[in-house]
Amino acid sequence: MQRVNVGLLGCGTVGRGFVELLGRERERIRARHGVDVAIRRILVRDAAKQRTGINPALFTTSAIDVLDDGCDIIVELVGGVHAAGAFVRRALRNGHDVVTANKALLADSGRELFATAQTHDARIGFEASVCGGIPIIGALQRGLVGDRIDSITGILNGTCNYILTRMEQDDIELADALLQAQAHGFAEADPSLDISGVDAAQKLRILSELAFGPMTMRLRVHGIGDVTRAEIEQARSRRCVVRHVAAARRVAGGVELRVERRELPESHPLAAVRDETNAVVVRGRAVGEIMFQGKGAGSLPTAAAVLADVVGLAQRNRMRVLT
Amino acid sequence: MQRVNVGLLGCGTVGRGFVELLGRERERIRARHGVDVAIRRILVRDAAKQRTGINPALFTTSAIDVLDDGCDIIVELVGGVHAAGAFVRRALRNGHDVVTANKALLADSGRELFATAQTHDARIGFEASVCGGIPIIGALQRGLVGDRIDSITGILNGTCNYILTRMEQDDIELADALLQAQAHGFAEADPSLDISGVDAAQKLRILSELAFGPMTMRLRVHGIGDVTRAEIEQARSRRCVVRHVAAARRVAGGVELRVERRELPESHPLAAVRDETNAVVVRGRAVGEIMFQGKGAGSLPTAAAVLADVVGLAQRNRMRVLT
Repeated sequence: MQRVNVGLLGCGTVGRGFVELLGRERERIRARHGVDVAIRRILVRDAAKQRTGINPALFTTSAIDVLDDGCDIIVELVGGVHAAGAFVRRALRNGHDVVTANKALLADSGRELFATAQTHDARIGFEASVCGGIPIIGALQRGLVGDRIDSITGILNGTCNYILTRMEQDDIELADALLQAQAHGFAEADPSLDISGVDAAQKLRILSELAFGPMTMRLRVHGIGDVTRAEIEQARSRRCVVRHVAAARRVAGGVELRVERRELPESHPLAAVRDETNAVVVRGRAVGEIMFQGKGAGSLPTAAAVLADVVGLAQRNRMRVLT
Repeated sequence: MQRVNVGLLGCGTVGRGFVELLGRERERIRARHGVDVAIRRILVRDAAKQRTGINPALFTTSAIDVLDDGCDIIVELVGGVHAAGAFVRRALRNGHDVVTANKALLADSGRELFATAQTHDARIGFEASVCGGIPIIGALQRGLVGDRIDSITGILNGTCNYILTRMEQDDIELADALLQAQAHGFAEADPSLDISGVDAAQKLRILSELAFGPMTMRLRVHGIGDVTRAEIEQARSRRCVVRHVAAARRVAGGVELRVERRELPESHPLAAVRDETNAVVVRGRAVGEIMFQGKGAGSLPTAAAVLADVVGLAQRNRMRVLT
């Protein structure tokens, strides 16, 4: 049995989900995959705060306690760019593998961080950074490398899709749909990154780097902040729906990335994607269109992607040790 | 640059697709993934037969010429159980990695072959064996290992789905729909493995081994041979469609596998899967339902999965050499 010590940075929504999921799945993963994943330290803001089901002795408010504790894998679930970036750089320079759900960090500093990882013979797992539980990163990293990808088209932000679906089905304005999204926990208290399209653009950028490689990318982002009930009604009168679509495709000289509202015919595969569901359609020259669909966010789906990366990196390291 | 020599067994539909795709993608894979894939020998039945675009010097009618030629990876596209099984066993015992699209062989002898591979420190890539270009094997092997899978439900046979869709949309009987499928190249001259449900059952079995592990499996298979226009019309009158569904789920004491026709409401995700398209819905305890959809067969989609496995195994072996 291979023991893997995890240093966990952050114990918010996804962090708590990770602890809960690991508690539930640890024995199955030991038995099926031969890896025993244990959490050694957890970075929190307030170590005195009660968190049900987690041993308080694991908590620390010092990142160094986690980063320099000799853990095998650092799981970064702090979010944001600055502190998280500093933590990830330090972990990689220590030669530790990192698993992160942080799309903002990867969209901002991805190329630099992957270069740092390579220099220090460490790896970054980031399946959780795009579309939560949908294993789209692995599909682009491995399953689809035999083919040339021509385009990626998706609904990458569950909050926007929930809002558009509610406006469409309940005949309400954006502000009311947003309140519903917040009441159901799909939207943050500050939903501006979602509404503006920035969140979807970050995810599209990560997928595009994987699919197209280091090419010149032109990005145009338009959010849903100015969508009206009238726009959605007009679409319906044409048997169409309005969806917030993130699309990347090869063009002369590079890749064009667009995040924008599109009117899609009801028969379009993305028209059937409702509420907080995410979907990605990858078009390859040989394979044609492949669609991936599922829950794109949420504590447990995202935690499942984090845990899959932890197990995958552990197995990879075991192979290196055995060789 | 890492050079990978491939010994190719079989040059039928998928084999020719593999040669064509590699010709097209070799340079991209060199540049992006640092792997130069070259075909060294090709086993064929008739070495004198003209095959456009393939160097005839590569052909041999002797499997030993391919198997014992010191290739890095053996790609088995012969099909069938007996000869293919003997070839794969020999390759594995030689310590070579094997990539195969052969679902019949894996359904028949999978556990034994994986044990042989482990003994000889070789690996088997089989992404192409289920649902062609859809990377569902990788998703179950890696992306979803963090979660407990409760069920797998899918449309795994494109021929049956094409037939049911044509019966539904063109109001024709099975025999006429089958002729259409054959005319479009979706059905074999002998379509009995498709129609009987055996092909779908083999694929479901492979997916279930990955998702649930070595558990007791109870399998019940019912084909589409006795489907009538009347059955489909009756379903339509209830706003339903008939689909040939392969479903596996945990039950007391093991896993239950069923391949059978089901009447699905038009709103069901699998009801929208038409013609030769395949789809798989994986339900995980944490991630909920994730759907994968795309072309499940065909020369180039299947070849793309084979090539992805070749690249992945090559990268894995490079890492072992570097360590």
